[in-house]
Amino acid sequence: MDMIRINMTERTTTREPMPEQYAHFGGRALTSRIIADLVPPSCHALGPHNKIVVANGLLAGTTAPNSGRISVGTKSPLTGGIKESNVGANAGLYLARLGIRALVFEGMPRQPGLWLLVVDANGARIEDASQYRGLGTYDTAEKLLAAYGQKASCLIIGPAGEQKMAASAIMATDMDGRPSRAAGRGGTGAVLGSKGIKAIVVPQAKGELPQYHDPETFKSIAREFSQKLIKEKEMLRVFGTAGMVKAANMVQGMPTRNYSLGSFDRADAINGQALHDTIKKRGGNVSRPCHTGCVISCSNIYVDEAGEYITSSLEYETMVMVGPNLDIGDLDSLARIDRALDDVGLDSIETGAAMGVAMEAGLLPWGDTDAVLSALDEVSSGTVLGKLVGSGAAVMGKVLGVRRVPQVKGQSMVAYDPRTFKGMGCAYATSPMGADHTAAPAIPGRPGLDPSKKFELTEKENQVELTRDLQIMITVCDSLGYCFFVGPDIENMRRSALLLTALTGRRTSYEDILDLGVSTLNIEKAFNRAAGIGPDQDRLPEHFYDEPLPPHNRTFDITPEETADLCYDLK
Amino acid sequence: MDMIRINMTERTTTREPMPEQYAHFGGRALTSRIIADLVPPSCHALGPHNKIVVANGLLAGTTAPNSGRISVGTKSPLTGGIKESNVGANAGLYLARLGIRALVFEGMPRQPGLWLLVVDANGARIEDASQYRGLGTYDTAEKLLAAYGQKASCLIIGPAGEQKMAASAIMATDMDGRPSRAAGRGGTGAVLGSKGIKAIVVPQAKGELPQYHDPETFKSIAREFSQKLIKEKEMLRVFGTAGMVKAANMVQGMPTRNYSLGSFDRADAINGQALHDTIKKRGGNVSRPCHTGCVISCSNIYVDEAGEYITSSLEYETMVMVGPNLDIGDLDSLARIDRALDDVGLDSIETGAAMGVAMEAGLLPWGDTDAVLSALDEVSSGTVLGKLVGSGAAVMGKVLGVRRVPQVKGQSMVAYDPRTFKGMGCAYATSPMGADHTAAPAIPGRPGLDPSKKFELTEKENQVELTRDLQIMITVCDSLGYCFFVGPDIENMRRSALLLTALTGRRTSYEDILDLGVSTLNIEKAFNRAAGIGPDQDRLPEHFYDEPLPPHNRTFDITPEETADLCYDLK
Repeated sequence: MDMIRINMTERTTTREPMPEQYAHFGGRALTSRIIADLVPPSCHALGPHNKIVVANGLLAGTTAPNSGRISVGTKSPLTGGIKESNVGANAGLYLARLGIRALVFEGMPRQPGLWLLVVDANGARIEDASQYRGLGTYDTAEKLLAAYGQKASCLIIGPAGEQKMAASAIMATDMDGRPSRAAGRGGTGAVLGSKGIKAIVVPQAKGELPQYHDPETFKSIAREFSQKLIKEKEMLRVFGTAGMVKAANMVQGMPTRNYSLGSFDRADAINGQALHDTIKKRGGNVSRPCHTGCVISCSNIYVDEAGEYITSSLEYETMVMVGPNLDIGDLDSLARIDRALDDVGLDSIETGAAMGVAMEAGLLPWGDTDAVLSALDEVSSGTVLGKLVGSGAAVMGKVLGVRRVPQVKGQSMVAYDPRTFKGMGCAYATSPMGADHTAAPAIPGRPGLDPSKKFELTEKENQVELTRDLQIMITVCDSLGYCFFVGPDIENMRRSALLLTALTGRRTSYEDILDLGVSTLNIEKAFNRAAGIGPDQDRLPEHFYDEPLPPHNRTFDITPEETADLCYDLK
Repeated sequence: MDMIRINMTERTTTREPMPEQYAHFGGRALTSRIIADLVPPSCHALGPHNKIVVANGLLAGTTAPNSGRISVGTKSPLTGGIKESNVGANAGLYLARLGIRALVFEGMPRQPGLWLLVVDANGARIEDASQYRGLGTYDTAEKLLAAYGQKASCLIIGPAGEQKMAASAIMATDMDGRPSRAAGRGGTGAVLGSKGIKAIVVPQAKGELPQYHDPETFKSIAREFSQKLIKEKEMLRVFGTAGMVKAANMVQGMPTRNYSLGSFDRADAINGQALHDTIKKRGGNVSRPCHTGCVISCSNIYVDEAGEYITSSLEYETMVMVGPNLDIGDLDSLARIDRALDDVGLDSIETGAAMGVAMEAGLLPWGDTDAVLSALDEVSSGTVLGKLVGSGAAVMGKVLGVRRVPQVKGQSMVAYDPRTFKGMGCAYATSPMGADHTAAPAIPGRPGLDPSKKFELTEKENQVELTRDLQIMITVCDSLGYCFFVGPDIENMRRSALLLTALTGRRTSYEDILDLGVSTLNIEKAFNRAAGIGPDQDRLPEHFYDEPLPPHNRTFDITPEETADLCYDLK
């Protein structure tokens, strides 16, 4: 596999074989290694010394299920630390078919400007994109697909990324050509914006699939793996991630009004059943995949009463962060806000958290959908309020003098209150990425590497060990190109070792697979430490330890000393 | 000497003898020890676990010259690290006369509210201050002096501090009862605001002066010391700190247009001579002391053409940061901006830097005094723009996506470009306070502890050692209550050892004096490290290393590795 270096200072592209030391890595394992090796940890995230790497996973292009996600790695302007954010997009598959593992953007334009990177069988080229300046991602996607083919896969930034807002996402076109999928977290969109790139366009590539060392074994394992996922994940196909609304509300862990409550009085109106029924009744779609090869299809297409498209996909995390967290409780509002966020190109989780802080400060009124949409319009037009909204929750709290900000290392928490979801709280505290639910989805039914270790959602026992194990397994998933729902699962780790062996002919053991996770996490932590983000920052804001969460009135009672033991310097 | 603990959760005050371990410390040495011992480094700066300590120096109330400054110590909401900021104010003297060394504010009001702390011979009491809510510092001071006597010394926050803006200052009333003196840096005003304190009022106290162990020796040394200062600092008495304008411009180190140039085309219109002549012609005052006991009198009172008071005192650092740094070049504009900043209660250095960043981003127009004043009005009224302006340069840069932000550890640089003032650059990089010119005034005529070591302003040789030595000596000054201009001077360090011995009867050597500085700096760095601010953050932003400063086109060429050797873990 090759990599393409895109030098934005010189505006040149160079295709070269993947250097030997990176040859056996993909996805997050690869992006984090390149960033750690080539980016000075103390550099400015929006300056010429930062790089941004787009890489598909080790299994990209194969028949392994749900393995087509693509990783974006960089130094984050939001956290100041290393970042990997991945997204389901066919670019991962197309690049694999072109024999390309990674795109590495370097330098910075000498003069302001806006460009596309187009990658196809003819190579990679930089094209002028000034006609797309200031456009939302939806308009941009429509024009790009018209120009490069309806099956092209595009990674696009919106007005937020062009303005280098720290909560900017990179939006990927979905199976229907709409920019509804996000490499959302950590401000990757701002870094792409700082390089002058409006979009990466990969027209449909029909090239060769990877050469399998042992195709029969591979296909047989992949087939059985797919069947297992199809069976296990049926509820996701029906209710999507919104199935979590009811459960999280029941355990009183659903962030409401800037994390001041753990349950929401109108949860029934926005739960998985309500979403499913509404979409079905209106003629939307409740089970769409995010990329070719997905067998779970947890995404949905949300339409209005007239059956007109509003957004895709309404996901649990976004729903809560712009719903209960803002005291908003109807699906149409959530869908309209989600659409506006995707269009302007902001991380919906981070921005929901930022708005919750703004509401606590009285800058925006609680529960006011129109005020939220109007603020997002201001993101697009670049007013001071807009720029503040696009800067994320931590900066919002700093500017407004708000103490209760649900963030770690500058990145907002997600739709799981850590006083209920104790393991998730450990993940928020210790992930090198800042607060992030995908770092370690510690929810019931997700054991760690030692299934004999029992844990209760709201109790501290064994949560630190669980979190460490899940982080290791998730890092493996992020590196192979798997989606989150393939997930942290010992059986799938073993299966992946067999798949990699069958694919490459290099004997890969279960231990090797886990070591991929461990070594990648340690590299990320070392980068962060050199960037000034050390173990002292592996903690939640003080109010989560101090203030009981109504109605159950638990606090987060796992200390930084307890998490540090297992979660720093992983063995 | 005693200390008073003010518990703002319970709204109680307790006077108690200074605990033994603090008995021989004052000023910064005391505030930093109390903060390091009693404040969890990871706490939220605006929360109940932070404390704010107000302490006079070890020589307060004595006849030692210029020894009446008062230190404010806390965990800074601007940097996240430890902070000491001191100010000339008679409160230092009055508290000494009341036998009080320190005020320690703790906890946080259970319900929002605004109070005064009044300290007099009857003790300390908390009084309602709701009638002062939202008032500028000038109106507040006028009302407080009317109520508590014209000679009262008040430490006041403005609307910025009430709103807990991270660049908020604590303003002290000057010899004329005007709130023109600032414990400006690091957001101390926001912390006082978070405690619900609008002002600390110390009515004139006529109590006993400290008991001298050996009064004759003390007075004789103090007298000779005063005469030396009077003689040496004559230029400060004539031109004030504005005398620096001409020199800094000549060496091309005066930050212009957000540190993009080192010299300013209209420097002659704002230099020391121009300021002196303008004030003299209009009937202002060019040589005012900031507190009783000052023999230098470097302050001025700036009046308009009709002889009406505008502001006091127009100082070099403010003049440059709101002048050339913003492309503004007339004294009346500088004076009006300075007055507005003092009145709203913002650090003029930090806010000047923040506005320079805002101008680079196009949010405010270059050189537009009215736009600056209008933005400061918005600070008072609490608009989003106002809150952003009050959040300091680093946050301004984050929100606007500006890479060229002159700051270290979240605090802005001052009116000395580090590419010219190399030693000052080392101080910016290594001070535990963030960028700060008072950390180590490395300008010609200021040798370190080894006067044989020569250095040139713009050359790197010996600058690190010089910076370390100056930081040690300045920390001593900050602990004894001296003003900056008594300063880093071996002879004055020796003199201070004799003064302390004569005052207390405890034999204090020159080495003991230096150790006071070293130990205090190490305590501060240890606090910062535990707060997540380690040696990796001892560096300037990358563009100071990369981008030559016109017109001389030098870069800052002293590496973090070079400064770390001598300036971290001081011996």
